[in-house]
Amino acid sequence: MQKIALDTITEAVINHGDRGKSHPRLYEIYTSLVRHLHDFVREVNLTQSELQQGRNFLNSASHHTQEIPTGEIHVLTDLLGISELVELLHDAHRSTESNLEGPLYVPNAPERQMGDRLGIDTEGDSLFLSGRVLDLNGQPIANALIDVWQPNSKGLYDVQEPSQPLGNFRARFKTNKSGKYMFETVVPLGYKVPSSGPSGELLGLLGRHPWRAAHIHFKLSAPEYTPLTTQIFIAGDPHLDSDTTFAVRSAIVELQKHEALDELKAHNQSKLFYTTEFDFVLKPATLSSREL
Amino acid sequence: MQKIALDTITEAVINHGDRGKSHPRLYEIYTSLVRHLHDFVREVNLTQSELQQGRNFLNSASHHTQEIPTGEIHVLTDLLGISELVELLHDAHRSTESNLEGPLYVPNAPERQMGDRLGIDTEGDSLFLSGRVLDLNGQPIANALIDVWQPNSKGLYDVQEPSQPLGNFRARFKTNKSGKYMFETVVPLGYKVPSSGPSGELLGLLGRHPWRAAHIHFKLSAPEYTPLTTQIFIAGDPHLDSDTTFAVRSAIVELQKHEALDELKAHNQSKLFYTTEFDFVLKPATLSSREL
Repeated sequence: MQKIALDTITEAVINHGDRGKSHPRLYEIYTSLVRHLHDFVREVNLTQSELQQGRNFLNSASHHTQEIPTGEIHVLTDLLGISELVELLHDAHRSTESNLEGPLYVPNAPERQMGDRLGIDTEGDSLFLSGRVLDLNGQPIANALIDVWQPNSKGLYDVQEPSQPLGNFRARFKTNKSGKYMFETVVPLGYKVPSSGPSGELLGLLGRHPWRAAHIHFKLSAPEYTPLTTQIFIAGDPHLDSDTTFAVRSAIVELQKHEALDELKAHNQSKLFYTTEFDFVLKPATLSSREL
Repeated sequence: MQKIALDTITEAVINHGDRGKSHPRLYEIYTSLVRHLHDFVREVNLTQSELQQGRNFLNSASHHTQEIPTGEIHVLTDLLGISELVELLHDAHRSTESNLEGPLYVPNAPERQMGDRLGIDTEGDSLFLSGRVLDLNGQPIANALIDVWQPNSKGLYDVQEPSQPLGNFRARFKTNKSGKYMFETVVPLGYKVPSSGPSGELLGLLGRHPWRAAHIHFKLSAPEYTPLTTQIFIAGDPHLDSDTTFAVRSAIVELQKHEALDELKAHNQSKLFYTTEFDFVLKPATLSSREL
């Protein structure tokens, strides 16, 4: 019999039912989450009206908006550092650092060719990004798939701005036989995470700014390698030290500015442009992060 | 500067911004919740795909259905014992135990008179419920407002069954000058919490049954007294020991069965009926639960 009192209710919840006989991992997660949520409630002596505000918050946070078509719950886990913590727990330090996907990934981006431009943006500064995809021994990985997405020079993704065609600044590339990739894009701008919903309101009440440092998202995959999701950040961004999703670690690239006439001509550019390089390192599919 | 790594990310989240200068209580709650959620993530070594399943779960749990017009988030807090834990934390032991409101309260129930019947249900067994509202010294409280709601004899609330008129088995009564109340209703049936959504699926995966023990909900208020939200449970219900919201504590009433002809006649009943009594005790508005 469950005897419900302050000192028994947590165990009563955990022991209700068959204790996860058919889904042991789910039960492990559930047990830990229940204990920690109950500890939290006790620690702050949560009141009925505060609990109700929490319920209302979660209800609102699931409403889908134009800013975040997949809903705010994803944003919320990013803002609370939970998404980045999960990355850190499963990261393998000898490969390129993994990083959070964010809520704006869209599968099946346009397939583009080596050297292609990623999207239309007449105002931004062009950026030529190139590099290689390598294995842990520094050997090139040919035909690796690079899925890239980023905001434009105003800090907006295609799905957030009706004037951008869908697929703008999204692409899938293959590396060549030397493991090389190269594409032209614009220098992305850092942006505020959507702030019209409850997550933005929470940040405001907490005195937290909503800025993300400028970055480009990547997903890489190749047969026999562990898929990698990551972001690279642009050196000099004012929010590198305080990105509101806690995602900035080591993958920061310096941009080289080019404005000499011969350089403009060689790259077929009419105004200044930037270049930078970044090599990605993938680990084999057979090694889990704990074995590395 | 925030240096993001496994051993620094939790403090980075908590120290992002002005540390709650303008909303200290919100910051206290946020800090504790972030610490406990991060501890949970570390403890179970949560993976990216498990985090995504969690996000999907919360997104689905906020969809509103006919079964739960206010959304499943409320149900979820009940099923995880969080709602009852909050009740226990703020309960005052000398008054009637407070208990969770549940997701099916509707304000502005019909005002009814002493002795009135609460609703239409041709199949159920009639129940005459009476008692008094008292203060901590056992003195009657006149003109106390009693707001009562319950499911019918099939375990369904008015908002869950289109054939019931809205307001069925809901009422607001006033106590008389002796603090007395009395009304006629049906014996409520225990019921399964809504199981068509993700909360029901979670219970199933965990091997937890979805049953609530039969109960009647009350909200009581009177000038100069602390409002009370509670439930009374029907003795003999098979789920008194395992109510899936962990709400069954001491407020359990025994029903007296009446089937003798003279009793039927005296109560104007054509078939067997039940009676029971319950006295509510309110504490003064000036005393917090910690002072009692």
